Order: sequence, then C-alpha cells, then structure tokens
Amino acid sequence: MGNPSPALDLHARLRGKFSVTPTTEVTLESLAQLYTPGVAEVSRAIEKDPAAAYRYTRKWNLVAIVSDGTRVLGLGNVGPEAALPVMEGKAIIFKQFGDVDALPICVKTSTADELVTLVKQLEPTFGAINLEDIETPKVFEVEERLRRELSIPVFHDDQYGTGVVVLAGLLNAARVVDKSFSSLRVVIGGAGAAGIGVAKLLVEAGASDVVLCDSRGAVYAGRDHLDPFKQKIAAVTNLQKRAGSLEEVLRDADAFIGLTGKPGLLTPELLQTMASKPIVFALTNPEPEILPEAALKAGAAVVGTGRSDFPNQVNNSLAFPGILRGVLDSGARSIEIPALVRAARAIAGLVEPTAKRVVPPMSDTRVAPAVAQAVRG
Amino acid sequence: MGNPSPALDLHARLRGKFSVTPTTEVTLESLAQLYTPGVAEVSRAIEKDPAAAYRYTRKWNLVAIVSDGTRVLGLGNVGPEAALPVMEGKAIIFKQFGDVDALPICVKTSTADELVTLVKQLEPTFGAINLEDIETPKVFEVEERLRRELSIPVFHDDQYGTGVVVLAGLLNAARVVDKSFSSLRVVIGGAGAAGIGVAKLLVEAGASDVVLCDSRGAVYAGRDHLDPFKQKIAAVTNLQKRAGSLEEVLRDADAFIGLTGKPGLLTPELLQTMASKPIVFALTNPEPEILPEAALKAGAAVVGTGRSDFPNQVNNSLAFPGILRGVLDSGARSIEIPALVRAARAIAGLVEPTAKRVVPPMSDTRVAPAVAQAVRG
Repeated sequence: MGNPSPALDLHARLRGKFSVTPTTEVTLESLAQLYTPGVAEVSRAIEKDPAAAYRYTRKWNLVAIVSDGTRVLGLGNVGPEAALPVMEGKAIIFKQFGDVDALPICVKTSTADELVTLVKQLEPTFGAINLEDIETPKVFEVEERLRRELSIPVFHDDQYGTGVVVLAGLLNAARVVDKSFSSLRVVIGGAGAAGIGVAKLLVEAGASDVVLCDSRGAVYAGRDHLDPFKQKIAAVTNLQKRAGSLEEVLRDADAFIGLTGKPGLLTPELLQTMASKPIVFALTNPEPEILPEAALKAGAAVVGTGRSDFPNQVNNSLAFPGILRGVLDSGARSIEIPALVRAARAIAGLVEPTAKRVVPPMSDTRVAPAVAQAVRG
Repeated sequence: MGNPSPALDLHARLRGKFSVTPTTEVTLESLAQLYTPGVAEVSRAIEKDPAAAYRYTRKWNLVAIVSDGTRVLGLGNVGPEAALPVMEGKAIIFKQFGDVDALPICVKTSTADELVTLVKQLEPTFGAINLEDIETPKVFEVEERLRRELSIPVFHDDQYGTGVVVLAGLLNAARVVDKSFSSLRVVIGGAGAAGIGVAKLLVEAGASDVVLCDSRGAVYAGRDHLDPFKQKIAAVTNLQKRAGSLEEVLRDADAFIGLTGKPGLLTPELLQTMASKPIVFALTNPEPEILPEAALKAGAAVVGTGRSDFPNQVNNSLAFPGILRGVLDSGARSIEIPALVRAARAIAGLVEPTAKRVVPPMSDTRVAPAVAQAVRG
C-alpha cells in the first residue's frame, strides 16, 4: 500500500526537520567547562549583567517562531500541533539562508493577552521573536503590545515579510513599465496581515495612491466595518477616498497586488480594465488570482506569483532570513519600517529588472546578506 | 589583558553551546515538500489527528528544559538569563548521551501558577518537559500539577536524576560492605529537591530505614515546620520517628547521603560515630561534606562524591539522558517511580561493584541505552 504523498513520506522519514546539535565536542573534559563546575562562573557573570547572555549563550542568534496555529498557510485555524511542520520548515529556511537559529514555538493560547504574557515570559531565552500564522486582528494587537513591552525585536513576517518583497518587486516593475513608482495607482486585494503590511511599506516608500480592498471593497477613512487596525491604514492610504468593489477600483489601476485567497479572481476581462502596461502580482497560493500565461495574454506587462514554477516569485523567504540576520547582528531592540524599506530596495537592487525578473530568485545567495546589511543600516 | 577564566573564554568563543540544524538538505526543490506547498498536506494530517505530530515533526524527540532561574546550581536565584548557560550545557549532554533534542527554555515567571500555565501553553511543541533549577517548594507544586494536567511526561531532574544515581550507587555499596540494602540505616542530609527525590527512590526500592534531615534536624511525621511536601515524605520515611540533629541521627547509621550544601560538614569524628563499614556519598559541589581521602582515613568503606576527579562520581548525568530517551521512545505519558527504580538497578548492574566503583563512569557508553531500556520496561 504505502503512503501516496511525497510530502507525507518525506516528513515521516525525517520525523522533524531540525535537530539541536552541540557547537563543540562534548567530552568529560570539555564538560568541566561547558557544564559544572566551570559554567557556574558564566552564570555569575550573567547574573551581574544579564546582557552578558548575548556574549556567552546562544541568545544572540536564537529566534522563537511563535504561532498559535489559528491561521496557518491558507488552511485556517488548524491548531498549534498542525502548525509545527510549517514552523519547522520556516526554521530551516532561517538557518539555511540567514544562519539564524530558529525554533518552532507552537502554543495553546486563546486571547491576545495570553499570547502577549507568554512571549514576555519567554523573552530571556531568545534574541528575537517571529510571529507567524496568527489570526487577524489578534496578531496586530499582539505585535503592537510586544513591540512596546519587550526589549528584544519582534517581527511579524506575515505582514512585513511579504511587504518587503512586494515593495522590491514593485519598485523594479515600475522601472520595467517606465512609470514613476510614487505615482503608481496600486490596488491591493485582501486586507489581512499581508495586505496591510504591503500597504504600509508602499506608503513608507513613497507610493501616493494605494487602495486596499477587503471583502467589502475599497478601504477608506470613515468607512464602516473597519477595525482599529484597518482604521489606521485607512488614514494613510486611499486619500482620494475611492469607494466601491475591488472590481470597480481596479479600473485604470497601474498595479494589482493579489492577496485575496481567491483563485481566478482576476479574470482577463477585469485585467483589461486596468491602465496600460499593468503590473500583476497574483500572490494567492497555490492557485493565484490569475495564471501568468493568461495575464500576459490579457495585456499584463509584468506578472509575479508566489510560486517557484513561474518567473518572479514574490515570496517572503527572500526577506525574513536576512531581516532577522541583520537585526540580530545590529543588536537593535526593534525592527522599524524604514529598515524594511531599505531591505526592499536592497533586494530590488540585486537585479537589472526585466519583465521576467523584477526580484532575484531564492537561489540567489546574495539576497540574505544584502538584506541583512540594509537592515543594519 | 584577556580574560583569565577558561570557562568564560570558551563560552565567549562559542557564543552558545547548541545550534538548530536542518536534518536534511535544504534546496529550492526540497523546500517544495519541506515547506509550501507540500507541507500543507502534513498540516492537514496533523489537524485531523494531533498525535500525528509525533510522526511528522520533531515533537517526538524534543524536550524543553524549563527553568525560572530561581535555584541554579549552588548559586541561588540568579535569574533566567543566568540560567541559560547551565541549561545549554544540559541540552548538549542530552544530545551527546541520549540523542535527545533538548532546548533551554528559561522564563520570567514568579508564581507556581504562572509557570504551570506557561508550560501547559508550550505543550504542543514538546515531547516531554524537564524541570530544572526551580526553587523549592514551588517546584514540587509545579511538578505535581503538571503531571496531572499535561499529557506529555514531566521529569524533575533535580529530584529524580540524583535519586536514581544515588540509589544505583547505594545498591552496589551495600554489596561491597556485605549488608542488606533493605535494612541499611540511611541518613540523608538536606531536604531540598534532591534529598526528597533520593528518599522517595530508596523507599520505593525497599530501604526500610531512611531518615531525611533538613536544617532543623531529622524529619518525621508530625514534626513542626514541615511544608506539605516534607509531610508527604515524612509519612514514608523515619518510621521510628527519630528526632534530633543530623549529627545525632547519624550515630550508628550505615550510610550518609550528603546533599547539604555545607562543605566539610562530615568531620572525621562525626563519621566515626557511624556504624561499621560506613558508606559516604558526600555530594555537595564543588567542595563535598568530606573529601574522599579524609573519609577513607576515618574508616569509610565506600566513598562517592559529585566530582569527576574522584572515584564513584554520583552524578545525575548518568541518569537523565537515558531516562528521557526511554520515555520518549516508549510514548509513555508520564514517568513513574517504579521505572526510575528500574533505571537505577540497570545502572547498578553495569558494574561488578568494588569500593572504588559502585557506579559506572560517565564515559561508559552503555549507561544511557541501559537506562532507556529499563525505563521502557
């Protein structure tokens, strides 16, 4: 019989994608320094100055990938155990591309307050926190509070990881279509964590006409059904207060960023209502809002997806290993939006943009070091 | 100038004794299975059956070494950051001797209740919990509650790790002096976690005359100044209700187990009040209650210490890697006292006892597998 799935097979064979390995030889002799009695002196040094933990332990390089499993991939609230294989995958990407030691910390909490309390209690062990696959709007509250209440940096990858790579791709796509980035009319479909993160970064980078759409259409200041986090982004986007459905506001747009979770949403007919030389990042996985071939046939000038089997893979994996590498190296206590914009510009700067290459591929080993350097500032 | 301490130097060079490493090659191709899109199927399988996390993720082999830093080594309440180098040392011992993936989780909590809540929230990620260097009596409450409220095993090494190795050594020491183990008069100096763990295991293994002493002298049922945990151990030890100071109850004892934290406590004169062919395990580190040479000169028949530079190193490192290895392999949901007695007998069985070898040395690679097998039962 056997298991018909290669992914399940591989996972069953590995039984875990990471292991915890000593950084030096463990012998009875070395243990006299690495453990008792020698380690007592190290403990005393850290007791006197807790910051010495960065010099004598792995804290300086250790990231907790924290998830409560409430919004895993496109699967929804699958629970913390089911989030483990995803966070393990993330951990090995951190190691491979950023030389960051990252651990899955999948937790059984319900409220934002519980999650904040837990992460604050874990703070002594880690050098940084990566929040992952936590449902909105809870995650926004968790992120805001942790950024205020922790003294180690907090990164919300679903929001800013995607944002950084979309910004990088859009900066280059604007060059390809010979339009000014700052005057691009951009429509973002989907106002979850990724949509909001993309909007924040585009605005910070100087985009002046960004319209975010949720399931009720364009988001603008004063619209009803806006939670506090959408209210905040509404204050800096869609300053013309365009109203209407995604389909309506897409008319004459220069760029569409698809984070809708709705495969096929962008029909060729709809795409053809956009401005000339439209840019399409159809990022819903695995089935995008429109397939590249159809988008190009309908007139798109630049097409990106989240997939590795098409050109222009707009994937947060280009960003997060280098971002955490940079922030851990710099000793910064937080990750600020301007540093993320610098990271996006660094990614964009690695390619001479063409329609088929607005971002470098994940195989480009220059990416993480360039991002890290940009984040260090 | 430079740093005069080899232990500090080594720690500064390593900057962490463990790292998190992938168990397979991480390539763009393999990531399609290890991460998106392939991993989604693994998440769905675990969502349907959370126990599948044991088959598809590292949960099966992952132990959290949880400490709040309130009672680290002999240093006291040094705080969670200062506990990190100790827990990292423990983690690499787990890996080296038991092939267990263990992680330092040093936390900022205050009450037992906070710590219990935290560990319960972390449960989805780990296969077992090792409580370490948490002050008494808090740790007893934490352990009791977690054993009841978690469905993964909880091991309190300070209590049972030492207990297992003392029991192993004492079983063999009784043979060396040709006395019956069950009728040995044993005095345990120190009623902290280790003293209580030793007492529990000796009683479970059939020792009929065990007297535990705290700072107020012999513990017996009904004595004043007994917290609930000492009351519980008082109910099964010192059935003769001997009262008096440690020095008083030591008269005519067959064995002394020193966990007092008081170097030099066992003077040659005091040792000479013990029964013939006395057994002395002077386990306070780094300076024991009596040095082996002095003890032997005063008439001790068998002497053990916690140190690697003397014969008979009675050290919990002989026990914990194999205990966790065994319990993780067996899938048991808890670690019970009888399994720990089996582990002690397995350790004892690895040597043909002599006065200078009542336990195997840590370099004996048969120890952890034998302990694991004994624990699996």
